[in-house]
Amino acid sequence: MEIMRVMDELVCTRRIAGLQASSLLVLQNQAGGLMVACDPVGVPVGKWVFTTTGSAARWAMPDVNVMTDLTVCGIIDNWQT
Amino acid sequence: MEIMRVMDELVCTRRIAGLQASSLLVLQNQAGGLMVACDPVGVPVGKWVFTTTGSAARWAMPDVNVMTDLTVCGIIDNWQT
Amino acid sequence: MEIMRVMDELVCTRRIAGLQASSLLVLQNQAGGLMVACDPVGVPVGKWVFTTTGSAARWAMPDVNVMTDLTVCGIIDNWQT
Amino acid sequence: MEIMRVMDELVCTRRIAGLQASSLLVLQNQAGGLMVACDPVGVPVGKWVFTTTGSAARWAMPDVNVMTDLTVCGIIDNWQT
Amino acid sequence: MEIMRVMDELVCTRRIAGLQASSLLVLQNQAGGLMVACDPVGVPVGKWVFTTTGSAARWAMPDVNVMTDLTVCGIIDNWQT
Repeated sequence: MEIMRVMDELVCTRRIAGLQASSLLVLQNQAGGLMVACDPVGVPVGKWVFTTTGSAARWAMPDVNVMTDLTVCGIIDNWQT
Repeated sequence: MEIMRVMDELVCTRRIAGLQASSLLVLQNQAGGLMVACDPVGVPVGKWVFTTTGSAARWAMPDVNVMTDLTVCGIIDNWQT
Repeated sequence: MEIMRVMDELVCTRRIAGLQASSLLVLQNQAGGLMVACDPVGVPVGKWVFTTTGSAARWAMPDVNVMTDLTVCGIIDNWQT
Repeated sequence: MEIMRVMDELVCTRRIAGLQASSLLVLQNQAGGLMVACDPVGVPVGKWVFTTTGSAARWAMPDVNVMTDLTVCGIIDNWQT
Repeated sequence: MEIMRVMDELVCTRRIAGLQASSLLVLQNQAGGLMVACDPVGVPVGKWVFTTTGSAARWAMPDVNVMTDLTVCGIIDNWQT
């Protein structure tokens, strides 16, 4: 699971039906790249989180039919980079 | 899910049957690399999109039997790199 | 399977239900990046381990329903980088 | 799906039974790395192709039981890097 | 499938049950990183091999229940980097 920081919520006008009404976040990984993740936890902007990828990302959602490959798993306390 | 920009449509004379008649796009990722993705949304060239990989890429297609590992999930509004 | 070093235990106040009460470790990979892994072995901080990813990470757990994408597989003896 | 160039055929004396008699190619990706892929299309050396990874690579083969994680999906026309 | 070189056998005192008694090798990839792979072929140290990842790595083993994400697929003849 990767450690990333929540940068923003994602504004997205058109999306595939498979994403349903999932909350989408823009995360920054340790290399500085920006990723989009589903958030079943409800994380505020600025927090450090860890994320899961692949098929585990779907199973980590309350509804396994959400077509994500990156899902927030939890909030990390007192993280320092 | 990764953030990429639509550069072009892909011209491809010979393809495996498993791709069916899917619309294929050339996308550029944040590192500058070029990728090929299936597009179930219908995105114009120049737009910023986010994409899903792995088995989720197949489930994100209207027909799960399309043999892709990268599918466009949605168009991002007002993205700036 | 990747070779990583155990840096710390992870302190995490809020996590998804799918992680259950799994022991979580912060690992450092060979490129210097930090990852979070489930630990079914019970590894002390400072040890070198090897890890499995993807769906194998779930099958490597005693309970396959733990939603991880990175699991410690074993402790390496006498490793030198 | 990644864009790669066909460099050579692979000469391999001993292989696992799971690869069957699949045609194997050495491809070069955009970063300059060399990969080995199964080729159900029949691509000549020097051509640009795009490839699929993961479980889709198996489904892209005529026989899904071939144990590949990289399969050629199609030939790209008039590609310039 | 990636091209790697066999560097050593892996000495590992404690491992998860899911790896069974599989033979484990330390491989070096083209970027210089070290990986751990299961070896169903029986490769001597120093040889060049190609490996498969993900779920294909499990299917490439004689017993699909071995929890690996990297398996040696074959030995490459006359490889030069």
